[in-house]
Amino acid sequence: MSFKKIVLDEKDIPKQWYNIQADLPEPLDPPYNARENRPASPDDFKAIFCDKIIKQEMSAERWIDIPEPVREVYKIWRPSPLVRAANLEKFLDTPAKIYFKYEGVSPSGSHKSNSAVAQAFYNKEAGVKRIATETGAGQWGSALSMACEMFGLECVVYMVKISFEQKPYRKSLMQAYGAQVFASPSTQTETGKKVLSQDPNSEGSLGIAISEAIEDVITHKGAKYSLGSVLNHVAMHQTIIGLEAKKQLEIAGDYPDIVIACLGGGSNFAGTAFPFIMDKLQGKTNLRAIAVEPSACPKLSKGVLAYDFGDSSGFTPALKMYTLGHTFMPGGIHAGGLRYHGASPLVSALVKHKLAEPVAVKQREVFEAAITFTRTEGVLPAPESAHAIRAAINEALKAKEEGKTKTILFNLSGHGHFDLSAYDNYLSGKMVDYEYPEEKVCEALTHLPKIK
Amino acid sequence: MSFKKIVLDEKDIPKQWYNIQADLPEPLDPPYNARENRPASPDDFKAIFCDKIIKQEMSAERWIDIPEPVREVYKIWRPSPLVRAANLEKFLDTPAKIYFKYEGVSPSGSHKSNSAVAQAFYNKEAGVKRIATETGAGQWGSALSMACEMFGLECVVYMVKISFEQKPYRKSLMQAYGAQVFASPSTQTETGKKVLSQDPNSEGSLGIAISEAIEDVITHKGAKYSLGSVLNHVAMHQTIIGLEAKKQLEIAGDYPDIVIACLGGGSNFAGTAFPFIMDKLQGKTNLRAIAVEPSACPKLSKGVLAYDFGDSSGFTPALKMYTLGHTFMPGGIHAGGLRYHGASPLVSALVKHKLAEPVAVKQREVFEAAITFTRTEGVLPAPESAHAIRAAINEALKAKEEGKTKTILFNLSGHGHFDLSAYDNYLSGKMVDYEYPEEKVCEALTHLPKIK
Repeated sequence: MSFKKIVLDEKDIPKQWYNIQADLPEPLDPPYNARENRPASPDDFKAIFCDKIIKQEMSAERWIDIPEPVREVYKIWRPSPLVRAANLEKFLDTPAKIYFKYEGVSPSGSHKSNSAVAQAFYNKEAGVKRIATETGAGQWGSALSMACEMFGLECVVYMVKISFEQKPYRKSLMQAYGAQVFASPSTQTETGKKVLSQDPNSEGSLGIAISEAIEDVITHKGAKYSLGSVLNHVAMHQTIIGLEAKKQLEIAGDYPDIVIACLGGGSNFAGTAFPFIMDKLQGKTNLRAIAVEPSACPKLSKGVLAYDFGDSSGFTPALKMYTLGHTFMPGGIHAGGLRYHGASPLVSALVKHKLAEPVAVKQREVFEAAITFTRTEGVLPAPESAHAIRAAINEALKAKEEGKTKTILFNLSGHGHFDLSAYDNYLSGKMVDYEYPEEKVCEALTHLPKIK
Repeated sequence: MSFKKIVLDEKDIPKQWYNIQADLPEPLDPPYNARENRPASPDDFKAIFCDKIIKQEMSAERWIDIPEPVREVYKIWRPSPLVRAANLEKFLDTPAKIYFKYEGVSPSGSHKSNSAVAQAFYNKEAGVKRIATETGAGQWGSALSMACEMFGLECVVYMVKISFEQKPYRKSLMQAYGAQVFASPSTQTETGKKVLSQDPNSEGSLGIAISEAIEDVITHKGAKYSLGSVLNHVAMHQTIIGLEAKKQLEIAGDYPDIVIACLGGGSNFAGTAFPFIMDKLQGKTNLRAIAVEPSACPKLSKGVLAYDFGDSSGFTPALKMYTLGHTFMPGGIHAGGLRYHGASPLVSALVKHKLAEPVAVKQREVFEAAITFTRTEGVLPAPESAHAIRAAINEALKAKEEGKTKTILFNLSGHGHFDLSAYDNYLSGKMVDYEYPEEKVCEALTHLPKIK
């Protein structure tokens, strides 16, 4: 048995984020204002985002300085460890070397804190008093609550009602960080009231919660909105993961052949893989970057590349992305963070250009991998992160079959201490797989916004 | 805002544990076999513990080598960080310097893993196949489950039924690590069956669970028992906490005036404070070592120093310790890990000799401190650990009042991600304090074993 962590010093926390927009084979298609049938302008975002965030969203600068106060808060848990999963390798009897970066050490238990802290800082600097957001299972909401508390900002979270009721622990975590948490649909907004008047027992949806958060921003002076994935600036903030991992692999005298991360909206995959895809774009490597999605929600594998709304009610500007249609409702897999219909425009562009490849995996094989990992490496992964583990194990077994030495890096984006009911479901033999519902997707795709 | 972690390298993981038995002002009173009315001999322990564990329990050697395979597993999370809580200091506006050692980074989320790994190793080495234990809230059970999995041992956990039902998450964590978990009273043992025949709805107790675990050991070939606190060898395994903290403070150019840890059975306090009390015993320092207990279960503050059983049913040998009586049932505070009637014989001896001092704090002031800490330092503590935070804040405020610079070190023994229902109880204003029940204790003390 052998465990090897590669730990960096605080001074090694990167001083800049990597912005892959600088290196894309062609510029991104701009966001589109579907209501007014024209490309969206920065002004379209001003009501909900502060200027620096909008600037980052649009920027083509390769390196963006991480403000010192952000680096300071990062120090609570960063640099995060890189671990050689030697015990897993031995168990698999594979010639492959497997490394994982471990983001579960953050106070919210996942990588989401990396962007939350940055967003809270820029809003504070811009004089914003209140940040509103939505959350499903609660990873993003708890990360943002903690970040807002650090910078003295009010934080308001609209949490999908069924999660609010079924997953009260994440709600309590947000409240412990001082956030106001409302079950959505709520009576705080006209949107919420309208939904409730039509269906007092509504369980809510991420779409409704987004609409409520945005209405909250528009109706409160000094308030801005914050998003936990999908957008370019969020993806960029997460690159600290891959940048640290690169330094750590350098210390280990290694470089990956394969980089793997799970994909919901895309910020986790972006953060892990973009700093390596940079090398690929510069012709320095042929590595493969694998984005792992649930087969119940396979936007990259089975979706179309088209303009679509970010939310299920069509409130946001439309983004050019791989999507299953914004009205598509995936099966109830436990990896709530991966139940999103679209993929970040940046990741979508890379997939289009074959610079990243998608893999879809089923829920039960994901939990099987999670248990293998828990019992060999000792760390219980979040169900989302376990998607990356499944793919890493598959690649390690393939290397064994082919008799090839491969270096595999994956990101363990969060711990599973909030997800034990999902493990109970698996271990008790009750877990089901969700088939990919071709017909539902086809139906959802008929609702894509009409772009001229 | 400022955050400063002091991180050690893996090679700095201590190579030896510190055994304070070598330095005590007088030797410990030996365990007592109350059934046969004679001091207990090593043979009394052979049925349930392997030889090396018994040897450590009785040893007066100052330093005991940590086996390499144990250090190897420690590397999964150790060395744990030491953090200067500068943001908390600023919030309190205190001249005191506050440091905390953070044990919540372990895979089980608490310090319990430090001894679990050592105990699993020694049992494996001795050819043991199966380890049985009891657990209340589940911290110890999950730590031992993980440790057994690492060394390929079968692990059987008898979990108090009311916790099994009310706290299913810890149960699932143990199962994810491959342990068999039974709600106690169970039908696995004669003890359990007997209890159930008398009361089919019994909610169980730690006493019943201990009896079931010990019966399991006696009735299974190749099985041994494992305990998560109280005993000398467990206290010694935990000294890795204080030994690391000492190195880290040295790097920071500091040394504590006050060392603080919460106390349930005593191993957390022992692990944190003993390496510093060593300096005190050697006349090198006058530091104060504070053991923080809940006012609902104040064995050190209000108990008597007497021989008492380790379990509530009087099955174990009697130990000389501060106790509230083994039949004492404390109020239902959320810090389940501190609801134990007695205190480790080693800690009890130090308190007797005024080398450690107890402080008792109330539940609501503990959670108030926990919230202050969460919102300044970003990390949500376990309710047990929050007892230490309360005492640290109190000392920092006293330093402010007196205008004195003090260096305070406390151990944050675990994270609170499993304890959010307790936070919910506090934040919703429903939390109550439990008064110290003088009359119940007096009653319980009449049940102390009769020693000649």
